[in-house]
Amino acid sequence: MKFIDLRSDTVTEPTDRMRTAMAEALVGDDVYEDDPTIKLLEEYTAKLTGKEAALFTPSGTFANQLALFTHCNRGEEVILPHDCHIVAHEVGGASVIAGVQLRAIESVNGKMDIDKVKKAIRYVDDIHYPETGLICIENAYSDGTVLSLDYMKELHMVAKEAGLKVHMDGARLFNAALSMKEEVSEVLKYVDSAMFCLSKGLCAPVGSMLVGDEEFIKKARKKRKLMGGGMRQAGILGAAGLIALKEMRLRLVEDHENAKYMAEELSKIQGIEVLKDNLDINMVFFNITDNRLKGKMTQEAFLKEGIKINPEEDNMMRFVCHYYISKSDIDTVINFIHRLRRY
Amino acid sequence: MKFIDLRSDTVTEPTDRMRTAMAEALVGDDVYEDDPTIKLLEEYTAKLTGKEAALFTPSGTFANQLALFTHCNRGEEVILPHDCHIVAHEVGGASVIAGVQLRAIESVNGKMDIDKVKKAIRYVDDIHYPETGLICIENAYSDGTVLSLDYMKELHMVAKEAGLKVHMDGARLFNAALSMKEEVSEVLKYVDSAMFCLSKGLCAPVGSMLVGDEEFIKKARKKRKLMGGGMRQAGILGAAGLIALKEMRLRLVEDHENAKYMAEELSKIQGIEVLKDNLDINMVFFNITDNRLKGKMTQEAFLKEGIKINPEEDNMMRFVCHYYISKSDIDTVINFIHRLRRY
Amino acid sequence: MKFIDLRSDTVTEPTDRMRTAMAEALVGDDVYEDDPTIKLLEEYTAKLTGKEAALFTPSGTFANQLALFTHCNRGEEVILPHDCHIVAHEVGGASVIAGVQLRAIESVNGKMDIDKVKKAIRYVDDIHYPETGLICIENAYSDGTVLSLDYMKELHMVAKEAGLKVHMDGARLFNAALSMKEEVSEVLKYVDSAMFCLSKGLCAPVGSMLVGDEEFIKKARKKRKLMGGGMRQAGILGAAGLIALKEMRLRLVEDHENAKYMAEELSKIQGIEVLKDNLDINMVFFNITDNRLKGKMTQEAFLKEGIKINPEEDNMMRFVCHYYISKSDIDTVINFIHRLRRY
Amino acid sequence: MKFIDLRSDTVTEPTDRMRTAMAEALVGDDVYEDDPTIKLLEEYTAKLTGKEAALFTPSGTFANQLALFTHCNRGEEVILPHDCHIVAHEVGGASVIAGVQLRAIESVNGKMDIDKVKKAIRYVDDIHYPETGLICIENAYSDGTVLSLDYMKELHMVAKEAGLKVHMDGARLFNAALSMKEEVSEVLKYVDSAMFCLSKGLCAPVGSMLVGDEEFIKKARKKRKLMGGGMRQAGILGAAGLIALKEMRLRLVEDHENAKYMAEELSKIQGIEVLKDNLDINMVFFNITDNRLKGKMTQEAFLKEGIKINPEEDNMMRFVCHYYISKSDIDTVINFIHRLRRY
Repeated sequence: MKFIDLRSDTVTEPTDRMRTAMAEALVGDDVYEDDPTIKLLEEYTAKLTGKEAALFTPSGTFANQLALFTHCNRGEEVILPHDCHIVAHEVGGASVIAGVQLRAIESVNGKMDIDKVKKAIRYVDDIHYPETGLICIENAYSDGTVLSLDYMKELHMVAKEAGLKVHMDGARLFNAALSMKEEVSEVLKYVDSAMFCLSKGLCAPVGSMLVGDEEFIKKARKKRKLMGGGMRQAGILGAAGLIALKEMRLRLVEDHENAKYMAEELSKIQGIEVLKDNLDINMVFFNITDNRLKGKMTQEAFLKEGIKINPEEDNMMRFVCHYYISKSDIDTVINFIHRLRRY
Repeated sequence: MKFIDLRSDTVTEPTDRMRTAMAEALVGDDVYEDDPTIKLLEEYTAKLTGKEAALFTPSGTFANQLALFTHCNRGEEVILPHDCHIVAHEVGGASVIAGVQLRAIESVNGKMDIDKVKKAIRYVDDIHYPETGLICIENAYSDGTVLSLDYMKELHMVAKEAGLKVHMDGARLFNAALSMKEEVSEVLKYVDSAMFCLSKGLCAPVGSMLVGDEEFIKKARKKRKLMGGGMRQAGILGAAGLIALKEMRLRLVEDHENAKYMAEELSKIQGIEVLKDNLDINMVFFNITDNRLKGKMTQEAFLKEGIKINPEEDNMMRFVCHYYISKSDIDTVINFIHRLRRY
Repeated sequence: MKFIDLRSDTVTEPTDRMRTAMAEALVGDDVYEDDPTIKLLEEYTAKLTGKEAALFTPSGTFANQLALFTHCNRGEEVILPHDCHIVAHEVGGASVIAGVQLRAIESVNGKMDIDKVKKAIRYVDDIHYPETGLICIENAYSDGTVLSLDYMKELHMVAKEAGLKVHMDGARLFNAALSMKEEVSEVLKYVDSAMFCLSKGLCAPVGSMLVGDEEFIKKARKKRKLMGGGMRQAGILGAAGLIALKEMRLRLVEDHENAKYMAEELSKIQGIEVLKDNLDINMVFFNITDNRLKGKMTQEAFLKEGIKINPEEDNMMRFVCHYYISKSDIDTVINFIHRLRRY
Repeated sequence: MKFIDLRSDTVTEPTDRMRTAMAEALVGDDVYEDDPTIKLLEEYTAKLTGKEAALFTPSGTFANQLALFTHCNRGEEVILPHDCHIVAHEVGGASVIAGVQLRAIESVNGKMDIDKVKKAIRYVDDIHYPETGLICIENAYSDGTVLSLDYMKELHMVAKEAGLKVHMDGARLFNAALSMKEEVSEVLKYVDSAMFCLSKGLCAPVGSMLVGDEEFIKKARKKRKLMGGGMRQAGILGAAGLIALKEMRLRLVEDHENAKYMAEELSKIQGIEVLKDNLDINMVFFNITDNRLKGKMTQEAFLKEGIKINPEEDNMMRFVCHYYISKSDIDTVINFIHRLRRY
């Protein structure tokens, strides 16, 4: 049975083209930097993002943690939005692997107030203060919004004045860039390093890329080994990654359009309130204000209908569009909710 | 030359009574738990605070870090006010020694919003979440305010419901208790462990106490050794600590009264705006709103007059009262500012 | 051009059967434990090894570090052979991720003297001592030898008496078991957890398995996420892993026989001294005692002939047999060395 | 009751001269570098040891751990003797605070074989290797022996060639220097940093000094704060430290002579075998070869006689001479053992 899976874009399976590419991939031992497909992927990534170098890693969390570990000395402070992925969903890894102190700034839609950032930077050499080691942002943000280029420029300037680097968790970098209507390389001009996922909307099965300057990536390569992310014939995964970048990247706009369509249709349902300001990418967030309806919209009810959803979190539902969610799937979902309401 | 030192109550020298007691102290090797004076101090402290056991440590930062290290497993999260001492003034130690992730909650006067605390606790066993390991508060707070007993009770209840422990940074615990008009043991009923300083207002030269239940202190004793805080004939310092607790503790009210007096007199000076809500203990915070006056109120100017002050921090001045600041010293200071204004 | 690659068995590419299986693999999001192929692989592994549970990880280093991190509290001591992989080739990861202290015991062929192990265990609860957290062994050892079952039993008994667990780095577990002529499940009876690689001799492109009891694997699963080893549609790799275990495992004896054949032929060459005691698995170690020959046996010379070798390490050469090294390849290599000698 | 305490030289109480000095010490807030006595002590120490700068710390363990933390980046390797204090008696602190990997070299009397040290240094930039961060030695060694200046020179040269620094745990530095018949400054020429204790044989109640170049000590000062070792009016302890250095340092020869005398007398007792090669400083090690005598030489038996001893460790007894052990005390002890034998 084929499910309509709205839980996340992480559930996307590799496409047939990817499967063929993986079966035919040229590979070598990537720990010895002998894997031609990984090399190709890393070079392609560097060019696409306008950065000097790139590194393949097993996951987005891995690449984020590796970035912290590579940029910072232990005990340094990292300034970042209070509910970003690194703070909220990486199992406390920053305190274990990089050994850094998170200086979380209350933020709205991933936007830290620039003045608060300035105040949080430890300019002064006081014996009581840790050094500030890095500023992190996340774009697109996990609440479905996107930071503007202007904001990124301003933050970048603040960082440069303080002699600090900026890392971007770009798990959904290409969604962000498409929403911003900017080239990826333009977006990344205002950060020193970035991570993005080949899985998620791009449908590759496994892998995330870390980009930055050559010295940074050289250091990161060794620390990747320490963290156990040195993989052997990784070109198998790299082959899928190349297709993700070449063939799946630009079609993400379709997911954005589908999300907008789904939002519109959901808005028409009484008792559902869509968060229209959180519609920048492929995610639809909404509240169920009608308690009777809420009682009916359970995971179980949807599952019986062949639809997988996540439960509410913080009183909010999230439906995610991706390659395997067609417009007609959305119609099926909407119709089902209408039916639910009626009974 | 005797200075009027308003920088902090950490500058207080040991009293003559302390000096005599140190010279005559019975001592032994405290690593072997052979020091009778330290034993006495630890027993006295336990009784005074209503806790099962106590441990002598070299400093307040040491005792706070030791508490985190003893309560938490590495990688766990600690919920605490965003600008408390552990976050802001302990050199990032929590990411090094305990290896914990700080989950800082925006707070006002050290008060975290209880609902935000609840939301920050990781109740659910999600694979993306670190465990919540501890909640920390600071009382008195470094901005001169004191948490109410009601607030402490409420937070304690939230913690207990979540199966969490609470540690209190009570560097100025006795100032807080006096301001709250509560017994220290009553205040500490609502936390599982606490640290307080024998130096600062109590005038002992060196040392802070960590209190908690017996098992906690037993573990902390071993971890104190790991951190290099096992000291040999520490009873020398313990002798001063005992006097601090027995003879200097209750007189802190005089410092509070002096602070209020100083605040009143400062308020009368045009161009000075005292923060009247931050007057719970021995500290006076004020803004200089008159730029001409501000230009004159430099460290150098005061020093020439025999007065030591800290420079502004975040546009705020802080004057601190303690054992060596008499009412007449305050008059001297106030008169000097009046003179400064006039020229 | 097809090379004869003697550098390591890590260079083995996936077989055609693996490529097909990967192309056709059923997959899901393994972070949600939704990947059927990974589930199959983990169940198959558990059964094969006689352990309760198994976990897929990106590499052998990852699985070793994860084992340390899961077994031990930070600051504990791990007793292990002084030149094992964890000490010598994992980039110091144990001090970063698990945060443990390595208590390395001088060993011969990976065998720690049992009495030295006993002496290294911190039985006593002394305030100066870290806790002993784990004993590690490596079998097969990277010098080409295998620990006997008797040795493993004895060590296991010592560990149990001290209430300690044993972890085995079994990167080449199946080589070891075949050489020991024992079932894998029999070998692993004497350890609490073990890691083995699906890559290396088994030819899977990426991945290593960690096995242990259910509670251990449950904890490890969460810590794997922290370390960034939670991968999405990992079943692609799992499909190759299953073939590795089902079809490639027993054929490792061929590599052992080839290694013995190669050793024999090398022994016949004047100026070459084979380490006959290090011939338990698929590796041949030898010294070049003839300096003229040594001068000729360079990486470059071999490469021109289509043969890849590693340079000497500690005055020793190592040639490794694997699936892609046939008997006739060995003849080619031997003939080439004879030719080199002659000129 | 006055005990004859042979357990360690750590049990020494401050002398009357120290008590007076402490009572009269000029002090200030040393966190602000305002304590005149600590300044004096640090300057005196720097001059005495021939190093640029010195730092007061709460204990020897603290100063050793601080040295590792200051010299090394996390994850680096530290080469050191396998049973030195840092490995064996600092509670695993190196894996917690500095986060370094200990590369312990089997050693005899604290002497690592120079060739093994060379082999342990990671010269090559291999992706599998941690960086070597430091070499540590301990002199005098805790087994009562002293490293020769020639050995220290040789090791120093090896370190310099590899671009490495050397730290010396000199808890009993002055005992070592006296035994070597060298100036302390000459001994310390061959290390980059060193720690020594003011307590132990020198009789100060609390404190150890860390010495090194100015940049090292500046960094260490900040990290000391992080570790909680920033103490306020530490001059109280500093005053005792100055007397320790000025008045107690050279008299350590008396303890050495007493140890030799005790060793001689012990040798005369049948059933006792003194380790004559471990008699370089103030410690006497011996085995009790007569089991009947062994049964009688219990802590309890000695305690009844007013003598405190430690139990056997690794089948060895250790008696330690110090300021409070006179020749006549030794006679008392020897007579008592003779008596024990007879009954």
